[in-house]
Amino acid sequence: MAEKVDTLIHARWLVPVEPARQVIEGASIALRGGRIVSVGERDQISVEADEEFSLDDHVLLPGFVNAHGHAAMVLFRGYADDMRLQAWLDERIWPLEHAWVDQDFVRDGTELAIAEMLRAGTTCFSDMYYFPEAAARAACDAGLRAQITFPIVRFPNNWSRDADDCIHRGLALRDDLRSQRRLIVGFGPHATYTLEPKNLERIATYATELDAPVQIHLHETTAEVENAVKETGERPLDLVERVGLLGPTLQTVHMTQLTDADIETLAATDTAVVHCPQSNLKLASGIAPIAAMRRAGIRLGLGTDGAAGNNGLSMMREMNAASLLAKISNHDATELSAFDALHLATLGGAIALGLGDEIGSLVPGKSGDIIAIDLSELETQPVYNPISHLVYTACAHKVSHLWCEGELLMRERVLLTLDEDRVGAHARAWAERISKS
Amino acid sequence: MAEKVDTLIHARWLVPVEPARQVIEGASIALRGGRIVSVGERDQISVEADEEFSLDDHVLLPGFVNAHGHAAMVLFRGYADDMRLQAWLDERIWPLEHAWVDQDFVRDGTELAIAEMLRAGTTCFSDMYYFPEAAARAACDAGLRAQITFPIVRFPNNWSRDADDCIHRGLALRDDLRSQRRLIVGFGPHATYTLEPKNLERIATYATELDAPVQIHLHETTAEVENAVKETGERPLDLVERVGLLGPTLQTVHMTQLTDADIETLAATDTAVVHCPQSNLKLASGIAPIAAMRRAGIRLGLGTDGAAGNNGLSMMREMNAASLLAKISNHDATELSAFDALHLATLGGAIALGLGDEIGSLVPGKSGDIIAIDLSELETQPVYNPISHLVYTACAHKVSHLWCEGELLMRERVLLTLDEDRVGAHARAWAERISKS
Repeated sequence: MAEKVDTLIHARWLVPVEPARQVIEGASIALRGGRIVSVGERDQISVEADEEFSLDDHVLLPGFVNAHGHAAMVLFRGYADDMRLQAWLDERIWPLEHAWVDQDFVRDGTELAIAEMLRAGTTCFSDMYYFPEAAARAACDAGLRAQITFPIVRFPNNWSRDADDCIHRGLALRDDLRSQRRLIVGFGPHATYTLEPKNLERIATYATELDAPVQIHLHETTAEVENAVKETGERPLDLVERVGLLGPTLQTVHMTQLTDADIETLAATDTAVVHCPQSNLKLASGIAPIAAMRRAGIRLGLGTDGAAGNNGLSMMREMNAASLLAKISNHDATELSAFDALHLATLGGAIALGLGDEIGSLVPGKSGDIIAIDLSELETQPVYNPISHLVYTACAHKVSHLWCEGELLMRERVLLTLDEDRVGAHARAWAERISKS
Repeated sequence: MAEKVDTLIHARWLVPVEPARQVIEGASIALRGGRIVSVGERDQISVEADEEFSLDDHVLLPGFVNAHGHAAMVLFRGYADDMRLQAWLDERIWPLEHAWVDQDFVRDGTELAIAEMLRAGTTCFSDMYYFPEAAARAACDAGLRAQITFPIVRFPNNWSRDADDCIHRGLALRDDLRSQRRLIVGFGPHATYTLEPKNLERIATYATELDAPVQIHLHETTAEVENAVKETGERPLDLVERVGLLGPTLQTVHMTQLTDADIETLAATDTAVVHCPQSNLKLASGIAPIAAMRRAGIRLGLGTDGAAGNNGLSMMREMNAASLLAKISNHDATELSAFDALHLATLGGAIALGLGDEIGSLVPGKSGDIIAIDLSELETQPVYNPISHLVYTACAHKVSHLWCEGELLMRERVLLTLDEDRVGAHARAWAERISKS
């Protein structure tokens, strides 16, 4: 008698990510209790399923892991472009945040961002923004996986008075959300220039004690490093090392300014790096030395950053940018192949967030975090190798189905846990108020 | 009594490109006899129209001008990626072309490319490929505007014996197509390394005599320039200048390797340049100094190049890549703003192809080459400035309507002059045959 499963999905192609570069044609994948029980060619899998999907023009792959962002900021998308980073922050973003950011803003903005991420195949995102309790609630309700890193800054803002207040509120949130299996709450120290060394020390102590992830913006620009040296005599990375933050639970974001010795240090301490190529390009921040970091074995993920700067939340665009940028900056068209970019956006990100045993590839035992992409459009014809199209042609708008922990969150591009009309109406209402101000 | 027009289009926004950076809210545009008769706010335009369109969530803009490509090569899309340019050509593309390229291949491939280009808002494209008569026929039937530059190479291929044979066939095609108002036939010398100097001299003579455009790949890579110097003692650009090709009818493509003196020469001779950022990135060819060329006043267009390398034909992706690349390579986030990129992809390209009086902006007297893009999706919310979304967010798949010379070629994303099912079936059939070989 055939084994019983909850969900059985058949598809034209399946890219498990492990083993590397494999494409299974005529594939099936079976899920039970939210977990993958078998993956292979269709005739090798004989099970009985409560629900069955036949996706004849589609490729199945692990859901994307967006390893860095500020979801709610999507409500500022396109408000200010083509500006230098510091002017953009000082003159536009920070005044906007002071004027508008509150619980409702973060709730509505995060919902819009989640809707966009789900529609582009992201099943797990990392977030760092004010009112993280509102973002966490939106993620819980939508049903995707999230790492909520509560922001820690020394200056007063609409959410908190100072760094200690941030930590206090964040730890309370961590406590509240203990039972949420798809959520992880970690520390989000904004940057070394928005915190005191003593704050960073305190974060290192707590994070070690709690074994919690820490995500920090680090070495985003030359100016960040130069200013730190001028003002304190110490580079941000050296400060982070000195206070004891480097290590397996630290996720450093951007990292465009690195020496060979820095790369050795990151590898030796098993510190993770999150690459945000489109953000780095658009803000002219610099180019993270991804090729060298890969060779050094550093755990690397990929992130969209916030859509106020970037200006979208598609990991497929991010894979494309990562690959093209790696090629041109290394003068070598063989750098960061299509598969390498896909790895960064899935398993690489999962490993960088400490979730490599749970998600990031389609292998038995892992969680059923799966997406289907329809490759039947003219824009993705012909198909010699579906992995190429995932990275080099535009098909993010053709993500058709998405499962998180075996739960179907999108079917034929219709979101099942979010009301798209309501999300869109809220976004328009915010834009109208903000535009008039 | 109200004036009578053929077509009247109302839209939420209209970006005429001239004047620069203008966005008209609540706009209308009226067309008669294929030409624009008026553009402005809706209540300023009082006409009676045979056909009227109300596009409430849309932005209207001039159709994109794809100033360089090899349309039929889309049938090789994704066949070979992540390879160095010379190996990619020697080991993959040239053997494939030898095995497969014929009239039918070019006809079917060009139709697929045209379908993709129309769906992404391109109303005018430049082409350079074997069997240009088949590409020209496909363009005529589809109804969009095209510059067909017949390829000229010295080596025998499936279409021609040698350079003289190419010129002979090409001039016959030019003669055949004299009456086609939306087509221009020009010379497409492939590159200095695939032709003899005497061929280039002859092309210069004919092109001057006929006042015909010439498009050539030039200074694509460091290796191209170095090999030429090693083998002939002369850089390709210097050779092109010596044989008399530089000037207003020449369109040089790629141009990643340029000195300040070269930029002065191009400006002084009014030679046009076509920038292909995604192709240059993916093949790690180099970075064209667009910022310096813009400051020098050089006529600049934007091209996708062939989809065998690039791997798509969306000018919106090209605008995005051009802007991000200009920013990072100049270490300045203010370089090539969203509007500047839009200008390159519309009026800039039109001027580069010598069509600046006819197309490229929405002003009275110009041809009605117009597209509408629906900005109502969640991915393009909120809308503070539609120009930002055209360049920085992914909305090529939301091009809804397209007119060329006032003729509607796409309505609500349905192509009216091409059978999408047939085009897709042909593409699949080619891929099956090619895959099995």
